[in-house]
Amino acid sequence: MDRYCIGVDLGGTKIATVLSDLQGRIISADRRPTNAAAGTAKVLEQIFTSIRQVMRGVDPEGILGIGVVSPGPVDREKGIIVDAPNLGWENIPIGKIIQEQFQTPCALENDATAAALGEWVFGAGRNLNDLIYITVSTGIGGGIICNGQILHGRDGAAGEIGHMVVDVTGPPCNCGKKGCLEAISSGTAIAAAARRLVGAGRDSSLIIKSQNNPDLITAQLVAEAAAEGDPLAVAVLEHAIHFLGIGVANLIQIFNPELIIIGGGVSKIGKPLFDGVWQVVAANTFAHTVKDLLIVTPELGDNSGTIGAAAVAIQNFAARGRA
Amino acid sequence: MDRYCIGVDLGGTKIATVLSDLQGRIISADRRPTNAAAGTAKVLEQIFTSIRQVMRGVDPEGILGIGVVSPGPVDREKGIIVDAPNLGWENIPIGKIIQEQFQTPCALENDATAAALGEWVFGAGRNLNDLIYITVSTGIGGGIICNGQILHGRDGAAGEIGHMVVDVTGPPCNCGKKGCLEAISSGTAIAAAARRLVGAGRDSSLIIKSQNNPDLITAQLVAEAAAEGDPLAVAVLEHAIHFLGIGVANLIQIFNPELIIIGGGVSKIGKPLFDGVWQVVAANTFAHTVKDLLIVTPELGDNSGTIGAAAVAIQNFAARGRA
Repeated sequence: MDRYCIGVDLGGTKIATVLSDLQGRIISADRRPTNAAAGTAKVLEQIFTSIRQVMRGVDPEGILGIGVVSPGPVDREKGIIVDAPNLGWENIPIGKIIQEQFQTPCALENDATAAALGEWVFGAGRNLNDLIYITVSTGIGGGIICNGQILHGRDGAAGEIGHMVVDVTGPPCNCGKKGCLEAISSGTAIAAAARRLVGAGRDSSLIIKSQNNPDLITAQLVAEAAAEGDPLAVAVLEHAIHFLGIGVANLIQIFNPELIIIGGGVSKIGKPLFDGVWQVVAANTFAHTVKDLLIVTPELGDNSGTIGAAAVAIQNFAARGRA
Repeated sequence: MDRYCIGVDLGGTKIATVLSDLQGRIISADRRPTNAAAGTAKVLEQIFTSIRQVMRGVDPEGILGIGVVSPGPVDREKGIIVDAPNLGWENIPIGKIIQEQFQTPCALENDATAAALGEWVFGAGRNLNDLIYITVSTGIGGGIICNGQILHGRDGAAGEIGHMVVDVTGPPCNCGKKGCLEAISSGTAIAAAARRLVGAGRDSSLIIKSQNNPDLITAQLVAEAAAEGDPLAVAVLEHAIHFLGIGVANLIQIFNPELIIIGGGVSKIGKPLFDGVWQVVAANTFAHTVKDLLIVTPELGDNSGTIGAAAVAIQNFAARGRA
């Protein structure tokens, strides 16, 4: 009998689900917008439907487990999503709920940590012991593999790379602090910085690009304008990339990893971002720690989350086998 | 037969050696100033003499191993001190040399990492899985235990906490970078900041305390003057402690540890330092990550280094037993 795992990437805007074989290959996939406004029961129903969708035509006996990943803190032991502001969820025992529904073990993980796991097991980090996955998107998150293990910390809250303070004089962060990496280098922060400058009357091609509506300025528009040489966009992007480089350099000094993976929407800026990060990293680390270091995009691309979720299920299955 | 290990803490100013039992209790100790100027052979002879001193009256058969710790990078596999600027040493195969001399296995470790190990095995971190040891002295170093293992990274260079950049506009660091934690919060940095201000004509009780010779201003004098309310000293110390707090907060966000240990000469400032660090940490971390966190002084006090070195030898003995 063929054996599979299911991975569910539960976000505030979309639910993405895959059926994966034990080598991390996607057999079938489903994706639907999260109807968070309709309430918890409705979202749970959406998750059930999405899981049923990817299971169609497969013998349920062959499903070894389900992995669910979501942003923010999860209690892996108890299978509880502790806090998912985008869903308006607090302390939802989703592990137990899914387990009851499908009569299959369900394991939980933070989404960035799961993406790191996915890349470690099936992607760019295969056979390595020390790697860091950074997702630069609306926020900045991280997953860390060190000593050949996932770093969870005392209660699963490790890896909050986005809330490392890199500039004490920096802008306020959603978390209430000031100068967090996320407040400077995330997509949201890049768009906000450009909006502030345009709003203050500075000239930029972003004014036309946003149809004279600063609210429409996104990180992607800033990257486009920067690529065309718009000075304001170039300055905004360089500032964000500089501090991203400082954050990466700090992680290198602390972890001495073999590999850094930078994913998430903002990483799609590509070469200018990776070149800029490298330049700052080279100037802010000891030479021997970056000699053989690689900084790459995720090998699993946009599937890091779902394949990571499937990897969580596979790892949970393996751990049960050992227990 | 009683069984012992030997720990050697090899520094630029002193060689400190202990004979320890397997519970980390010091049986005998030796301490002598390092004669680095006399060259490698002379320092090696000093180490031999120091080891012989603590072994006096003990059956050599009962010595399970020797652990040597030094600042800077070591190659644990090859038993080589890669770079010890204070000693003027580069690539000295001290492991093999000591092993030949005493016919006993010799293991190497970075000194801050060994201090973390010592506290983990025999001190404030007993029975924990996630703790960070920070030494704030002339420099700032760190040793990290996560997932119940020492964090070494790809080639043993992990834990360079002092070279985390916390202020991109900060003062230059000895490492060539700018705004490293070490360049702001180390003893050397505290003294330098006070000297700069006094040298620029600012009034302070430090002028009298240093007999009008700014070169005599030390971090300890600054702490004394601050305790007496000298405004310049208070400002210098608060700045250093603020950034130390930022560094600690960043480590908490990244590692979610159970315990932070702050040792080294500067930690002897005591309550003002620990209170100041806590204040910054509380303001710069997620509440749940600091709820049950402790920030403490080393339980092994000034013996963290030597007992840590003995713990390195004990761990090496245990690892050989398993192999």
